[in-house]
Amino acid sequence: MSSSPVGLHRVLAPSGVLPQAAEKLDASPGIWPDEVRIAVERLNLDAASYRQLAEAHGGDGTAIRRAVLDIIETRGKMQNPVTGSGGMLVGVVDEAGPDSPLGVKPGDRVATLVSLTLTPLQITDRLREWDGEGEQVPAQGHAILFARSIVAKLPDDLKPELSLAVMDVCGAPALTARVVRSYVDKGIKPVVSVIGGAGKSGSLSLVAARTAGAARTIGVVPVQQEKERLESAALADVVTLADARDPVALAKAVEDAGGPADITVVCVDVPGCEHGAVLSTAAGGTVIFFSMATSFSAAALGAEGLAADVTMLVGNGYVPGHADYAMELLRAEPGVRGLFESRLAED
Amino acid sequence: MSSSPVGLHRVLAPSGVLPQAAEKLDASPGIWPDEVRIAVERLNLDAASYRQLAEAHGGDGTAIRRAVLDIIETRGKMQNPVTGSGGMLVGVVDEAGPDSPLGVKPGDRVATLVSLTLTPLQITDRLREWDGEGEQVPAQGHAILFARSIVAKLPDDLKPELSLAVMDVCGAPALTARVVRSYVDKGIKPVVSVIGGAGKSGSLSLVAARTAGAARTIGVVPVQQEKERLESAALADVVTLADARDPVALAKAVEDAGGPADITVVCVDVPGCEHGAVLSTAAGGTVIFFSMATSFSAAALGAEGLAADVTMLVGNGYVPGHADYAMELLRAEPGVRGLFESRLAED
Repeated sequence: MSSSPVGLHRVLAPSGVLPQAAEKLDASPGIWPDEVRIAVERLNLDAASYRQLAEAHGGDGTAIRRAVLDIIETRGKMQNPVTGSGGMLVGVVDEAGPDSPLGVKPGDRVATLVSLTLTPLQITDRLREWDGEGEQVPAQGHAILFARSIVAKLPDDLKPELSLAVMDVCGAPALTARVVRSYVDKGIKPVVSVIGGAGKSGSLSLVAARTAGAARTIGVVPVQQEKERLESAALADVVTLADARDPVALAKAVEDAGGPADITVVCVDVPGCEHGAVLSTAAGGTVIFFSMATSFSAAALGAEGLAADVTMLVGNGYVPGHADYAMELLRAEPGVRGLFESRLAED
Repeated sequence: MSSSPVGLHRVLAPSGVLPQAAEKLDASPGIWPDEVRIAVERLNLDAASYRQLAEAHGGDGTAIRRAVLDIIETRGKMQNPVTGSGGMLVGVVDEAGPDSPLGVKPGDRVATLVSLTLTPLQITDRLREWDGEGEQVPAQGHAILFARSIVAKLPDDLKPELSLAVMDVCGAPALTARVVRSYVDKGIKPVVSVIGGAGKSGSLSLVAARTAGAARTIGVVPVQQEKERLESAALADVVTLADARDPVALAKAVEDAGGPADITVVCVDVPGCEHGAVLSTAAGGTVIFFSMATSFSAAALGAEGLAADVTMLVGNGYVPGHADYAMELLRAEPGVRGLFESRLAED
């Protein structure tokens, strides 16, 4: 038997499924040559998962802690059986197998960017430092990363909270830049509209678009306060107000701001933005959907109903080098950093 | 006031929404310079819509007919208020405005490829030729097409049922061919895997991939009978059996058939195929999701969990020239035609 890059060799039950679909993983600490073991410092539970546990246990911290421990011991991973979701973790690389392609070495402080739902995990301190209140869980133990995994070193020059907030959305700027570059390579400097431009993924996507060669960047925001915020951060050539759920209003706002867009990036987590995104995009253009509230059928049928020849991309959270690229944008662009820091201060 | 290419000028209520979202459209017969009026011959009701109406009226044909008439009279379009769905229609072009970009002229027999949910419609014969039983509704009246609409001439050399079956899925081969060509243009002859290769959209996509320059085509089917059917049609270089909902099994089957695929085309309407499609696609490859059962979040999170650098496309049902292209494939390839005819005979 050899190890599988996606971790099939760690699946205990049911046999033959991917780690994310498994009921139970083998979280034993000995690593295969292509694996990495991490000494865990902190788990960040997925918000939906924590909320479910808190409600199920009436907010009793001790009971919530026991429930989390029980899940990890039973499943060999932190995957809430009700919500199906996990979270991510921060720790220090303990051992990296000689064949691991992840590019980390012992002592590196890292965050995992793949979900806890597929990460073998053992806890050794009974989570005694955690009061069970809140999604941030100080923890001791170890986690295993497979060859096909995603991990990012935490930069020394940034606060961990800031780095984690950037990593959480780093797929969006990387894919936006890639799509913009594909236009530039064809000799077209595209107009790029980012719906939800003042948010975390949106602001990074605006900077990525500009850096990658957009002719014009348009930030779309829903309320005046966000407009002022994005304007003072100076991340878009034009900032415009529109309700993204209203296709006609959105298309007009983008048009008036110098559109239609060659590339539309959807970064707002509200349902019903598909038709507006399509309608505000030029024929032959591209829509990238990063919002998890996107409806596949609304996008497909909406484009057909509007006879819109647009390429529609499912925003993949993984693009090689995405975390480093997002960090570079944050460092290079004070406006983005300011937005992130002010959002962190609000949380 | 001028007419809007997407039909905003025909929206009576609520104001400012797209025709598909409207409660009521203006279906009056006078056309704007960029519109087309069609003399209706037959409505094809959406299957889900007909089923709902039949159940609501206990299968009473007269009551179902009255319900359909009532919807069309009230709304100015055939959009089932419960299911939200419509269908399409067949008719003859009655008048084409001088500014219409649709390329049709009076006397052309056509099918509309945009949904009835956004097509202004008036019925003049009380649907008296329809017994209310079944989705095919002989009808007299008129329908209006906007500038941004999709309409296809019914070829003289093919039975209407066959043409309509092809038109129903014609977006898939057109987009598949476009993506294959984008690889060929970069000097790569791609391996193309079509999941659900023996179905209507799947078989056309296989032929499109081969015609556009694929190095190898792999048809994935779920059962032995479909395998034999696809093999005897000779539409794929290799036909392989796999359950597309089982990512590990699917990836292995595609690998054994000469994969991983550079391009994976998902044409099976069953939920849960996202991870398998991603896992059986090579790094840097492309997945095109045509199945309406696709979950946006399963695709996005699945690719991230597998650290898969794949481009994922929402299968847009509209690509310019898609209906003519699909008809050409059908005419040129007896294997596709045979599959379609045998499926029609089964229905």
